[in-house]
Amino acid sequence: MKNTFGNNISLTLFGESHGEAIGAVIDGLCAGIEVDEEYIKNQLSKRRPSGNTDTPRVEMDEYKIVSGVFNGKTTGTPIAIIIPNTNTNSKAYNYGIARPSHADYTAYVKYDGCEDYRGGGHFSGRITAALVCAGAILLQALKGIGVKIGTHILSCGKESDVSFSVASCDVEREIDKLNARVCDAIPFLSDCSDKIREAINNASKNKDSIGGVLQTAIVGMPAGVGDPWFDSVESMLSHVLFSLGGVKGVEFGSGFEMSKMYGSQANDVFRYDEKGQVYTETNNNGGINGGITNGMPIVFNSAIKPTPSIGKMQETIDFINKTNTQLEVKGRHDPAIVRRACVVVDSASALVMCDLLASAYGTGVFKRGIK
Amino acid sequence: MKNTFGNNISLTLFGESHGEAIGAVIDGLCAGIEVDEEYIKNQLSKRRPSGNTDTPRVEMDEYKIVSGVFNGKTTGTPIAIIIPNTNTNSKAYNYGIARPSHADYTAYVKYDGCEDYRGGGHFSGRITAALVCAGAILLQALKGIGVKIGTHILSCGKESDVSFSVASCDVEREIDKLNARVCDAIPFLSDCSDKIREAINNASKNKDSIGGVLQTAIVGMPAGVGDPWFDSVESMLSHVLFSLGGVKGVEFGSGFEMSKMYGSQANDVFRYDEKGQVYTETNNNGGINGGITNGMPIVFNSAIKPTPSIGKMQETIDFINKTNTQLEVKGRHDPAIVRRACVVVDSASALVMCDLLASAYGTGVFKRGIK
Amino acid sequence: MKNTFGNNISLTLFGESHGEAIGAVIDGLCAGIEVDEEYIKNQLSKRRPSGNTDTPRVEMDEYKIVSGVFNGKTTGTPIAIIIPNTNTNSKAYNYGIARPSHADYTAYVKYDGCEDYRGGGHFSGRITAALVCAGAILLQALKGIGVKIGTHILSCGKESDVSFSVASCDVEREIDKLNARVCDAIPFLSDCSDKIREAINNASKNKDSIGGVLQTAIVGMPAGVGDPWFDSVESMLSHVLFSLGGVKGVEFGSGFEMSKMYGSQANDVFRYDEKGQVYTETNNNGGINGGITNGMPIVFNSAIKPTPSIGKMQETIDFINKTNTQLEVKGRHDPAIVRRACVVVDSASALVMCDLLASAYGTGVFKRGIK
Amino acid sequence: MKNTFGNNISLTLFGESHGEAIGAVIDGLCAGIEVDEEYIKNQLSKRRPSGNTDTPRVEMDEYKIVSGVFNGKTTGTPIAIIIPNTNTNSKAYNYGIARPSHADYTAYVKYDGCEDYRGGGHFSGRITAALVCAGAILLQALKGIGVKIGTHILSCGKESDVSFSVASCDVEREIDKLNARVCDAIPFLSDCSDKIREAINNASKNKDSIGGVLQTAIVGMPAGVGDPWFDSVESMLSHVLFSLGGVKGVEFGSGFEMSKMYGSQANDVFRYDEKGQVYTETNNNGGINGGITNGMPIVFNSAIKPTPSIGKMQETIDFINKTNTQLEVKGRHDPAIVRRACVVVDSASALVMCDLLASAYGTGVFKRGIK
Repeated sequence: MKNTFGNNISLTLFGESHGEAIGAVIDGLCAGIEVDEEYIKNQLSKRRPSGNTDTPRVEMDEYKIVSGVFNGKTTGTPIAIIIPNTNTNSKAYNYGIARPSHADYTAYVKYDGCEDYRGGGHFSGRITAALVCAGAILLQALKGIGVKIGTHILSCGKESDVSFSVASCDVEREIDKLNARVCDAIPFLSDCSDKIREAINNASKNKDSIGGVLQTAIVGMPAGVGDPWFDSVESMLSHVLFSLGGVKGVEFGSGFEMSKMYGSQANDVFRYDEKGQVYTETNNNGGINGGITNGMPIVFNSAIKPTPSIGKMQETIDFINKTNTQLEVKGRHDPAIVRRACVVVDSASALVMCDLLASAYGTGVFKRGIK
Repeated sequence: MKNTFGNNISLTLFGESHGEAIGAVIDGLCAGIEVDEEYIKNQLSKRRPSGNTDTPRVEMDEYKIVSGVFNGKTTGTPIAIIIPNTNTNSKAYNYGIARPSHADYTAYVKYDGCEDYRGGGHFSGRITAALVCAGAILLQALKGIGVKIGTHILSCGKESDVSFSVASCDVEREIDKLNARVCDAIPFLSDCSDKIREAINNASKNKDSIGGVLQTAIVGMPAGVGDPWFDSVESMLSHVLFSLGGVKGVEFGSGFEMSKMYGSQANDVFRYDEKGQVYTETNNNGGINGGITNGMPIVFNSAIKPTPSIGKMQETIDFINKTNTQLEVKGRHDPAIVRRACVVVDSASALVMCDLLASAYGTGVFKRGIK
Repeated sequence: MKNTFGNNISLTLFGESHGEAIGAVIDGLCAGIEVDEEYIKNQLSKRRPSGNTDTPRVEMDEYKIVSGVFNGKTTGTPIAIIIPNTNTNSKAYNYGIARPSHADYTAYVKYDGCEDYRGGGHFSGRITAALVCAGAILLQALKGIGVKIGTHILSCGKESDVSFSVASCDVEREIDKLNARVCDAIPFLSDCSDKIREAINNASKNKDSIGGVLQTAIVGMPAGVGDPWFDSVESMLSHVLFSLGGVKGVEFGSGFEMSKMYGSQANDVFRYDEKGQVYTETNNNGGINGGITNGMPIVFNSAIKPTPSIGKMQETIDFINKTNTQLEVKGRHDPAIVRRACVVVDSASALVMCDLLASAYGTGVFKRGIK
Repeated sequence: MKNTFGNNISLTLFGESHGEAIGAVIDGLCAGIEVDEEYIKNQLSKRRPSGNTDTPRVEMDEYKIVSGVFNGKTTGTPIAIIIPNTNTNSKAYNYGIARPSHADYTAYVKYDGCEDYRGGGHFSGRITAALVCAGAILLQALKGIGVKIGTHILSCGKESDVSFSVASCDVEREIDKLNARVCDAIPFLSDCSDKIREAINNASKNKDSIGGVLQTAIVGMPAGVGDPWFDSVESMLSHVLFSLGGVKGVEFGSGFEMSKMYGSQANDVFRYDEKGQVYTETNNNGGINGGITNGMPIVFNSAIKPTPSIGKMQETIDFINKTNTQLEVKGRHDPAIVRRACVVVDSASALVMCDLLASAYGTGVFKRGIK
């Protein structure tokens, strides 16, 4: 439903880039979950621009939890988070000049010219700060019952991070190790291969931008969660992932590569391990069979398009004056959002995992534990 | 919500492969839409196995519309469709032997051993017959207001259909031509390249299976439909697409390829044509900016994994006896479902387009026309 | 959502009075619940006309469960129920003559003249046969965890059933006795006071009809179920109750009478009993405080308007010819539906209780028991 | 869904009485609706205590619209409203002493002792300030297309306001006059009969409280809005009305009184007036037939229980120490909330009307007008 997602644990997003504030409301999370504000701040810091390759607009994201948390714990009623916009730009906007690949034109058509166009308005990536803040609370709830999520940069432009991939782990047997590797790998640029950093810097120098692919692993999810058809784990995850501005592709497990395999290659062989636990020898299905978790890590990739805002001169339209025109986007922008997007994908995934677990076991699962 | 999807026009699916019947309920479609039963039958025929490469289970899909249609038109109340299962198999099933990449094991965990396991039960691709039947009604409603959907096989295994691709059309200017090409291309095997047919036959001979990528184009959607965030066109479409059994990847426009481009390459330049209509010179964004249609064709690809059921001997588990075992799937199965899946993707897409249009303009849009 | 209700356990209704079939789909009920077909038949029999005061249209309600039940138990996937219409009337209908207090005119306006008007179409009380059938399955699920629902006729026309009322029981201490009294009291006319039977017969003789008030008690619900605001127990129950054709008023506990009390009279005093169980000395709040169950019986009354179809000549309009006219409804109709409506209210209430319990404890509550 | 209601236009509520802030998010309202802040302030003033009979906690309700409004008009994206809590009470609370008829005990059970109990927390009537603020925006949207809502005190305790009742108007013919009477009657105590004022004062003197019945009329709604079954106008309205703390009964039209009538008395005779407009000679059905508006005023009554907080000594439990105890609620409280509740009911009704209209005509109805 538009700006609300989730069956049992839901998230509502609101706000515009240059309005008073952005924010989020989490509903349905059970009472008694500890809220660690340091953790929230740390998650927000992962989303903030840093270093010389990101946008210079640095806001400290002074979020405020205005309801739903009492004595450091969730109350079970809606958790409302407000992040005031402090660094809003009062400069004149070129309203009417559609930035290519942005929502300027489509917003104009949909909202009849009444949209808050400043800085992308409600379409701005800034809204994801509220998502990250909410996601931090949800990630803590998940962590409390042994579910962990991690996202790293699999590739950026044409460069892959050859130093690491979920596929290269012995995922079937080494879940804990995998968990550590993915979750500990705070995906700052320092963790990227030199080639990726170079690619970003080159794009930046050319007043251009670059995209990439993020890979996410979720470990600790029990088998049996999700549903066939419309509440499949893939459906729920992709729904939220595709709500993020730059995501143009999502694939689970081996995804598009799987379409090129033979069945005998793609099928994940089930086995019992020595402890009587079921695992699969490969994980081409990304931990999901028939829409339901099979106990293996949930693995998926998200394709991020290059940041639409570039410094180069671009052809476009002026939809107010109804003419073709040109545009040179002023100011500095992220040449690549892949690094900052990792924590956003983690947060979006946390929403889905929380909702799926609450649907399967009741919302009390976060206090009682699984089963 | 589990087996129901849609905000204003919703679809509910039910049934098991070898139970009494499968079916669907469409709710929210306005009164007065003509229902052409010949069209429904024709759509169902596209989903039926045919030729020597498909499964020999041929059911005539004798659907019955038991409510919601009166004097050949929709009444505005729920349209319930029942398709009895006539060719159910009474043979003993190897319950407990998990077919790799199937939902046997996950269903067992989720449903505590109470699932109807016969022929895949509720997870069976057979349920898509009900979706196609419902989709046929929705596609007619769309056609009445100028929206058309078509899906073709972009690749199968490692072979691409080089004879055709949405990307190779002059999509910006030749929407009608594109529409004709995609929609007229009834994607029977006869339309595939020889290489694709050969690949399928080879897989079949080797008791193996093969996947592929389907490409879909939707034309005639006005600009301004969809929403930022959770009701983005991408979110809604991917939600339904990933509810289909074999889909493991979805990408819009240039999708994963776009993640390798520079912004200056990826950005779709807006232009006014001589009639004052807005178009984009490229369509890397697949007709969607910020979750909202921009008036260009909506284009997306769906990665279909190879059919899990193969004749080859496979290692797996017996989850009743809790041991490792082997499995040789008996009977003949589809070596590739890419051909039959095209109409299923069209139907799923029709549900989303109808719902998005009803959300934007009210459900009466199908009688009044757009705006 | 139109014809679907419920967050975690949902019901979808479809069908028209004189179409092919009516039916229902239950979604979300967990696997492994036993389905007792004798119980379903018995419930349906309570809704059927009987004796000389009901409509002579007797259909045997040959329901068929076409999915979701396997080996006598629920599978966890959608339970679809079909009830074919066998006794449909082929006589000419006076289409255009709006029966007063019926939906003929409003349906015509809403559906632009495309509605299936025969016998009330989708508005017909006949649809409640599907609700009762679905409700029977849900009532069994509730019974398995100790929750029971019973409805009796509190008044009919101006006559009250002085022999029985929830308020006259010692509800705080004698829950089991209450339960027995309400639930065992199969509310056939034989259980009504002579005055009520006489009132109905008099209405019938005068070609008129009569309404009444039904009182429902639900026992066995644990404290702590429901939510403040929009998922309050009152909100959820009233939502479904007011979806039933003849219901024009709903009150919880002492309801409208409570509006005349002083706070010192109306407040229910909390007490611990000797076993340390909390109860309230009165139950003016009907077992609900702040939208959440307090462990006392949930008690509510539903006002049923007199059956709109009467034999007397009535003034009305012909909305096709746009003139005032007169109408004499032919055939025989129920002079009162209060008796037949009891099981319908039980069924509707069962849907809400199941959904609330699933939301509070997870859908598995029906197998695991409460907590 | 818990704290969110509405299919196409939804409202999310959050906040606790003594937390940082309360607030609301409206989603789905179309772009371009003018937001008159004076009107919002005026609506809030109707809800504020005034005179010597109300609670002395007076907060100026300094609301802030932090998103969704730009240049004085709605943008079409979520409208978030924040009302900081300034007059929060830092005094020690008797946590564990269950105030009778309040949610203290049920909240404790549901939230495992983690609830924010201060001043009723999320259950507090204070949350309705956010609802009134949101409702003011929705009422303006309705007014723009000719729909008006008014609520007055029909009775208070055992005293009726004999000077006015919807039933006493010639509602069929004098819609505008009715509208004026209901809507202009700003239901301050000054408009009440002397007897009602006296009853409230007497309750106050006796350290007691008193309830009442509110009557609401909605005029200007076109015929054909709403749905049979779960989206019936009655279902939707009662759902939201029963989410309000003190409401224990809701009846439409003649409601419970109708259950005592004969069909020949209760049936509303349809007629064409001289202009060819359909009306009914009586309005026992409250403007709704089969769940759908018939063009007559929508009329309903809400039973408000006496304010639970009274100054008299009351028996109750201490649920922390698990003993019976006594309670004397300190401070001064509203002896009656009927006056302040009128604008709350108007606001709740506005949400439902907006949602129903958006569902019937699309959300753009508020700009385009009806049809």
